[in-house]
Amino acid sequence: MELRIGRLPHGKRNLITDVPGVRVGHTTVDEGDLHTGVTVVLPAPGNPFLHKLTAASAVFNGYGKTQGLVQLDELGTLETPIALTGTLNVGKVHDAVVSYMIGLCASDGFRLTSVNPVVCECNDSGLSDIARRPVGEKEVFAAIESASADFEEGAVGAGRGTVCYGLKGGIGSSSRLMEIGGRTFVMGILVQTNYGASADFRLSALPAGIAPSDQGSIILIAATDLPLSARQLRRVVRRASVGMARLGSYIGHGSGEIAIGFTTAERTPAEEGFETVTVLKEDLMDIPFRAIGECAEEAILKSMLSAKPDRMLDGTPVRSLEEFLKEEKRKTR
Amino acid sequence: MELRIGRLPHGKRNLITDVPGVRVGHTTVDEGDLHTGVTVVLPAPGNPFLHKLTAASAVFNGYGKTQGLVQLDELGTLETPIALTGTLNVGKVHDAVVSYMIGLCASDGFRLTSVNPVVCECNDSGLSDIARRPVGEKEVFAAIESASADFEEGAVGAGRGTVCYGLKGGIGSSSRLMEIGGRTFVMGILVQTNYGASADFRLSALPAGIAPSDQGSIILIAATDLPLSARQLRRVVRRASVGMARLGSYIGHGSGEIAIGFTTAERTPAEEGFETVTVLKEDLMDIPFRAIGECAEEAILKSMLSAKPDRMLDGTPVRSLEEFLKEEKRKTR
Amino acid sequence: MELRIGRLPHGKRNLITDVPGVRVGHTTVDEGDLHTGVTVVLPAPGNPFLHKLTAASAVFNGYGKTQGLVQLDELGTLETPIALTGTLNVGKVHDAVVSYMIGLCASDGFRLTSVNPVVCECNDSGLSDIARRPVGEKEVFAAIESASADFEEGAVGAGRGTVCYGLKGGIGSSSRLMEIGGRTFVMGILVQTNYGASADFRLSALPAGIAPSDQGSIILIAATDLPLSARQLRRVVRRASVGMARLGSYIGHGSGEIAIGFTTAERTPAEEGFETVTVLKEDLMDIPFRAIGECAEEAILKSMLSAKPDRMLDGTPVRSLEEFLKEEKRKTR
Amino acid sequence: MELRIGRLPHGKRNLITDVPGVRVGHTTVDEGDLHTGVTVVLPAPGNPFLHKLTAASAVFNGYGKTQGLVQLDELGTLETPIALTGTLNVGKVHDAVVSYMIGLCASDGFRLTSVNPVVCECNDSGLSDIARRPVGEKEVFAAIESASADFEEGAVGAGRGTVCYGLKGGIGSSSRLMEIGGRTFVMGILVQTNYGASADFRLSALPAGIAPSDQGSIILIAATDLPLSARQLRRVVRRASVGMARLGSYIGHGSGEIAIGFTTAERTPAEEGFETVTVLKEDLMDIPFRAIGECAEEAILKSMLSAKPDRMLDGTPVRSLEEFLKEEKRKTR
Repeated sequence: MELRIGRLPHGKRNLITDVPGVRVGHTTVDEGDLHTGVTVVLPAPGNPFLHKLTAASAVFNGYGKTQGLVQLDELGTLETPIALTGTLNVGKVHDAVVSYMIGLCASDGFRLTSVNPVVCECNDSGLSDIARRPVGEKEVFAAIESASADFEEGAVGAGRGTVCYGLKGGIGSSSRLMEIGGRTFVMGILVQTNYGASADFRLSALPAGIAPSDQGSIILIAATDLPLSARQLRRVVRRASVGMARLGSYIGHGSGEIAIGFTTAERTPAEEGFETVTVLKEDLMDIPFRAIGECAEEAILKSMLSAKPDRMLDGTPVRSLEEFLKEEKRKTR
Repeated sequence: MELRIGRLPHGKRNLITDVPGVRVGHTTVDEGDLHTGVTVVLPAPGNPFLHKLTAASAVFNGYGKTQGLVQLDELGTLETPIALTGTLNVGKVHDAVVSYMIGLCASDGFRLTSVNPVVCECNDSGLSDIARRPVGEKEVFAAIESASADFEEGAVGAGRGTVCYGLKGGIGSSSRLMEIGGRTFVMGILVQTNYGASADFRLSALPAGIAPSDQGSIILIAATDLPLSARQLRRVVRRASVGMARLGSYIGHGSGEIAIGFTTAERTPAEEGFETVTVLKEDLMDIPFRAIGECAEEAILKSMLSAKPDRMLDGTPVRSLEEFLKEEKRKTR
Repeated sequence: MELRIGRLPHGKRNLITDVPGVRVGHTTVDEGDLHTGVTVVLPAPGNPFLHKLTAASAVFNGYGKTQGLVQLDELGTLETPIALTGTLNVGKVHDAVVSYMIGLCASDGFRLTSVNPVVCECNDSGLSDIARRPVGEKEVFAAIESASADFEEGAVGAGRGTVCYGLKGGIGSSSRLMEIGGRTFVMGILVQTNYGASADFRLSALPAGIAPSDQGSIILIAATDLPLSARQLRRVVRRASVGMARLGSYIGHGSGEIAIGFTTAERTPAEEGFETVTVLKEDLMDIPFRAIGECAEEAILKSMLSAKPDRMLDGTPVRSLEEFLKEEKRKTR
Repeated sequence: MELRIGRLPHGKRNLITDVPGVRVGHTTVDEGDLHTGVTVVLPAPGNPFLHKLTAASAVFNGYGKTQGLVQLDELGTLETPIALTGTLNVGKVHDAVVSYMIGLCASDGFRLTSVNPVVCECNDSGLSDIARRPVGEKEVFAAIESASADFEEGAVGAGRGTVCYGLKGGIGSSSRLMEIGGRTFVMGILVQTNYGASADFRLSALPAGIAPSDQGSIILIAATDLPLSARQLRRVVRRASVGMARLGSYIGHGSGEIAIGFTTAERTPAEEGFETVTVLKEDLMDIPFRAIGECAEEAILKSMLSAKPDRMLDGTPVRSLEEFLKEEKRKTR
């Protein structure tokens, strides 16, 4: 299915990894009643603690357990990979990221005594026995080691057990190209989709009763190589909700809806005590604003289009969007 | 044109004034190059300073000059009528509201020495010579005196000179009914629409080039008789942006986009030093969330459908949505 | 040493547990290079997930890793014990609180699939080998089981390895009584003190060079039985910084300074879909504002006065405030 | 009286105008029952709308009517002089700043159609008949025209009618020098002091009953030539409250307490669409943090030490701090 969302062209892969240096890895857990996993976004090559990235967040609905935003917002920096997982796993994944960062810093000759892991989550208790928390150090390290510019979308990693608008959700990703001053920059998004009441889905009329209330969550991770300050980046990520609203969401009470963005643009040391940063002129902010809205809408749809049909723990079938669209087409003939 | 937005029924008038006690008044200024005005929302009968209303705000994009939010957010209360006008008029309208409140309190035997007027604005400099600031005490008092449950929508009052998605904008309003615990509550919205790039409008394909960038502003005033705390009300008004996104907005840089909400539900004095308030159970918040999204989308469309075609100060025609839709229909025959 | 801070009387114990129902427990880890621990504040008898408490937070300086604030601020509720520990332990402590809550809910016949642990931290890497993270499920459960209205202050639990103004810090606590409408309410605070440059300490002139920069953190947990809304409670906890400033802090860059407050006042179910809450009249807010400032200042001093002298991992001695004051007295004779 | 607050040296004038380019002007109104005025801070030579300054704000207690913060915080910029006045005057002063900016832009060949005046206030109704609002265009223009690097402190301009800790307040100012990388930067503050209960004042024991409750307000305007991003500047101005707390304030309910800061450091146009900014390395932020705390404490005291004794409208005498200190000295002999 060919999607045409918005007006900007997408990058080569139409993935967040079109932003140079960004890589994504998954570990999927499928054992008995466990259908969950972890997805990591590596923001840049090298050690993000030693080369922090400018970052910002936006909380659309704070009914969620995302960790690390207090420091990320105060200092405007990201210093670890971003990990996404199921709700009750966040403590173990946080601890695994600490282990990983201690090791990474040790290999760079630096003794790490403090670090701010960013860990996000959706509740996948419909498809997975969430209380068992099977994602720990082994799974997180494997996801990091497998990270690549090419990665799978759909019901993998942190998207393994998620449900979106009553259909199978998962991990989706998308990118947009932005032309500024004769140069081309990239905006990319990766989403973990687990939100939405089916009756609200706007792409097509869905039968009522699949997902009667809007529960779950959506996490949106945005990356760009466009030079932006933390304040500008915060303005950008606040627009990620536009993509959700266009697909019918009203930002439900039970759904933790959180966006985090970072830029890979570098800072330059200046005279002693100072550094020099390049930032976009404020009156050009409409360009990344438009890009993130388009990316978010398309990434959500891609998470659903890439996912296979599944079954809840209680046996209820969860159809895929593809399956659903075929049925709708058949009916209307 | 019959609109069908969302799933909830609207109130009797499909106006913000379906919330009992809410009244709206306009003064429109049309003299030479002046095409502007003021719109006031009276939140309740009586003196709002002596009987403050629970209130909250949400700033989607702070490129605007709305006044009064610092105190409204700290105390969670509204103590004056809400006035909307053109950008450079806000100082004079603020001063007029101070005059009005001093008089109102004096007539209630109270010497007013401090008051927090809430004054919102959109930039109507395309249709009106904004530097001249013709809206002062006379116009504000007239709007307040004319306030009624029945009021005009379209290019009147603060909507006289506004442009929305490249077509004529103005004042629009809408309401939704919410059934909770066997009782019916009302959510109402009034908008001043002056935002949006025409190419982004989602109702129908608009010719490019009308409003090439998203500039201007949108103000959304929400009223309800549903008992909500200030924290809950803030959650509700943050969802007003959903209506804008569904019509194609990406919340542009140059557009001040601000929502303010209040509830007319009463507080009851309790034992000395305390008061008793009734609030919605948090797990029912989806009901007002859905209502405000639907209201916002419909109120914006009604502001455009009620407006007549016009002309910019530089002679450029500004079509109405009705006119535009007829042309589109003619083309597609 | 008799402290006289402020004008309000303190409660019976002069501890946070003067607020009826609040209990505090510690587990201290002292093995080789490990000198750390965990402190838990149980906000009320029973299961806080099933009977959530109204809560709010304030971040004075976000250079910290506290978890759980996103949801606590959105919903205005606390649903777990609050745990305090060393920085790199927060993931493991989070996971332990999840375990505890799953068990607690199971014993109440409820299958828990989502929960928002509140975990706070200070960096105790000066006295403890922080990378080893020795605080896990066993230690957290022991702290919860030992929780009582009577508890130790000083270098115990999460305060075992902390340093404050270059002297030994730790856990401190204090309370104040508030008379309103003929009734007596209690404000209580518990602090984990690990901040402050010695040259800034205002109680007495300290020799320079002990703690040349303001690094570390301070966590302030406030409890009260005064009926307050989440918005009011947020106003109260924002005043906790007053106590720090009075002792000389300028809220240093490297110090995560975070306050969290909750009230044990109950909500009453009302007609279907609603609940009734009693709240303080806004014009009486000065009473809890004054109380929290006094509590915070005194609790910080008590954390230092209760702590014994110690030694950093590198051998540098860390004097206690008591020891220091005696030396100063000797000098001035 | 020689003040020694903190550890950093002050600038040549010990005024906000030690920051190069900053000027301050007053207009004082003294007619019958009117004892009020306006104070303006000109942030830089030239037209601030055409050369915007990086800016940020912090609201310690939002019970105030300060205007312009919505846009200032979104865009991180200041584009007008900052005006301070009495509470009910803010509308008229806002309108006067609009007039001034229209004229200033016209003289620069620019037609101004939108501008964001920053107007702050304290309530001076104890000494002045506040309902009459005597400060308008004439007074604001005169204050701007008289602005200079040398200016009076005490009961002048916006400080004419204010009361602080039950003694005469007013306008105070102070500066601190910051050595970074071999260069010297300046932090300056100007305050309008109208807050504090006398019994809380910490400099010396004051007789009870002068100002039994903490009402009024305090505005703190901070200027610096240190290169800081808007995010960093926001961190700095949030520390201004430290100075208030050290003088005994607990940030009272009835007192609007607001800080606004700007930096005069320049941005440099970079390649098309971008600009280059220099910012302080984040780990040096303790330097401006310390400076603003010291400045704020000293500026508040200077506002009181510069003020002459006065009388309330109802005849109650308002002593000056100087007068009060002499009396205290006499008693203790």
